[in-house]
Amino acid sequence: MDYNKLALELHEKYKGKITTSLRDQEELDRDKLSSYYSPGVGAVSQAIAENPADLPKYTWTNNLVGVISDGSAILGLGDLGPKAAMPVMEGKALLFKHFANVDAVPVVLDVHEPEEIIATIKAIAPSFGAINLEDIAAPKCFEIEEHLKAELDIPVFHDDQHGTAVVVLAGLINAAKLTGRNLADCKFVVIGAGAAGTAIIKLLHLYGARNIVAVDSRGIVGSSRTDLNAEKTALLEYIDASQAGSIEDAITDADVFIGVSRAGLLTPELVQKMAEHPIIFALANPVPEIMPDVARQAGAAVVATGRSDFPNQVNNSLAFPGIFRGALDNGVKKITDQHKLAAAEALAGLVENPTADEIIPSPFDERVPSTVAAVIQ
Amino acid sequence: MDYNKLALELHEKYKGKITTSLRDQEELDRDKLSSYYSPGVGAVSQAIAENPADLPKYTWTNNLVGVISDGSAILGLGDLGPKAAMPVMEGKALLFKHFANVDAVPVVLDVHEPEEIIATIKAIAPSFGAINLEDIAAPKCFEIEEHLKAELDIPVFHDDQHGTAVVVLAGLINAAKLTGRNLADCKFVVIGAGAAGTAIIKLLHLYGARNIVAVDSRGIVGSSRTDLNAEKTALLEYIDASQAGSIEDAITDADVFIGVSRAGLLTPELVQKMAEHPIIFALANPVPEIMPDVARQAGAAVVATGRSDFPNQVNNSLAFPGIFRGALDNGVKKITDQHKLAAAEALAGLVENPTADEIIPSPFDERVPSTVAAVIQ
Repeated sequence: MDYNKLALELHEKYKGKITTSLRDQEELDRDKLSSYYSPGVGAVSQAIAENPADLPKYTWTNNLVGVISDGSAILGLGDLGPKAAMPVMEGKALLFKHFANVDAVPVVLDVHEPEEIIATIKAIAPSFGAINLEDIAAPKCFEIEEHLKAELDIPVFHDDQHGTAVVVLAGLINAAKLTGRNLADCKFVVIGAGAAGTAIIKLLHLYGARNIVAVDSRGIVGSSRTDLNAEKTALLEYIDASQAGSIEDAITDADVFIGVSRAGLLTPELVQKMAEHPIIFALANPVPEIMPDVARQAGAAVVATGRSDFPNQVNNSLAFPGIFRGALDNGVKKITDQHKLAAAEALAGLVENPTADEIIPSPFDERVPSTVAAVIQ
Repeated sequence: MDYNKLALELHEKYKGKITTSLRDQEELDRDKLSSYYSPGVGAVSQAIAENPADLPKYTWTNNLVGVISDGSAILGLGDLGPKAAMPVMEGKALLFKHFANVDAVPVVLDVHEPEEIIATIKAIAPSFGAINLEDIAAPKCFEIEEHLKAELDIPVFHDDQHGTAVVVLAGLINAAKLTGRNLADCKFVVIGAGAAGTAIIKLLHLYGARNIVAVDSRGIVGSSRTDLNAEKTALLEYIDASQAGSIEDAITDADVFIGVSRAGLLTPELVQKMAEHPIIFALANPVPEIMPDVARQAGAAVVATGRSDFPNQVNNSLAFPGIFRGALDNGVKKITDQHKLAAAEALAGLVENPTADEIIPSPFDERVPSTVAAVIQ
């Protein structure tokens, strides 16, 4: 299937993907219009002015997520700017609606410095019930999310980081079960220390993993490196910072490979240097670090990718719809580390008997959004 | 009818007024999801990166208006802040959809200085096909609109100013026809020199009126005043700046009274000081400057108000849905003075035989939005 061609056709045919409609589907007579708008609506404004906590009682913010990007890291395409980000953000809004009946509005930003992005999002925040940050480049994405989480009274969640980490952990829980491992005792190698890699490392650490080796484009990330930026220096406390060397050094004896890097990076020879029956998450898109059949032939016990045409797809749609559904429904003001762990465990629990072909539920499994939402309390 | 009570009931029952839905109502199978989102959507992003003018071809911006307010002048209630503004902005979005099938998203701003408001709106502007500014206090509304119109490549329209002015001019065209007057020869008195009053004066001037007297809370606005701010000083070129004195001085011999001021300001005695068979637009809400029956008894030939329960309602819903419908459909990048004049004339033309009870079409007249849209070319 040529998805590029179908995408261009569908987007042009429907002139976009989302639209607005009215909640009240009955006839809007004069009395209703005078109540939904002036003069009656003034009473609603006054009620909210008196008690701002009533905003979600009377407005669509109770079900509304702002999907916000500056377009600086669009999918794997890089910094294409805000207009090019719009179809992706509108697509995310479509997924929110489709999977969890969450209203979502795409907002693309024509500012690029972290402080400008923070100021803009703070300025528009009262418009939403929650904020999903999307496709904002590392390392600025960390600073932006941290500030907004601290300063806003609604949930803020950078899906490229945490959504990915939740689904990866869910898959790893079942992969460990399948291969008779205890994740806390495994050696992990994470290739790629951007938004997703960093979040995966932190969530693994929180789950109990202690033997994590991180690799970026310059080799193993460790305390002997003199070229680390502030974010990678901060990462040292979550990984085995004493390590140094090449990818090959990092991979040797690893139980788990997690790649958020580039096509073809993992060769069969490297797989053979890992521990026996290793677990491989090759998440580069659209072409993974190693193709699943090649990895299996080289000895991998189980392989996950980002692709829908192979088993075990790490698909963020498994996490973010339910996480926001739960946050909105349960009045949760911050998505915490405990929420992420609980979401990963809930997702993993949907696969009762993990096999090499099924460690992660399908995004089409209708139990997924409500199961995740139920643990966001 | 107690609109306040009904408003609170309806808003709570439906939990707001608008929602999102998907343009493609058929089943979203795996292929479609892979085209509306990753990986296929990447081709759409690249197409827009290569040709930003294609944004409306592929995204919902072709039909999308941002309804933006800082909540500094909510209806007649004053500065209640962004959260209290949300039900009004969401109501405006409902009217956009209901009257002209325009998708509109309410955005409320938690910044209040003009330069912050301008910076925020510029930052989010690529998200929309057009921007409707709403309930932003004078005088900052003038500066904000002017900057945004100059700096953005999409239409920006402050409805409290121009929507009101268009409908007022439409009504006056028919009121003049009814009373055998030529508007260019009339004496106008405009009470209230805020957002609406200023825009009405400028549009009347553009239409040919030269004898306009403006009155603010301190009396007649003229060149002898030493307390005028920059915006009122700029207004002097549109009015008879040689005038000075009280409301009574201003009203004497006026053919047309336009009040955007406060309840009860216009007494029968003052009406009797006007020219014979005067035209009275008493637009204060919810209680007009004079009640229509009282004005008629004092000699008024025709009376318009802002209320739906009297004849001749000056209702912005007559103008903004069609103006934005036309701008979006016809690729118009700026709403010009000529567009406002054309919209007023098109609206006036819908009343073939004006009577004292019908100088303005009803907002429920289904010809209205398309008739207005047709002249926004």
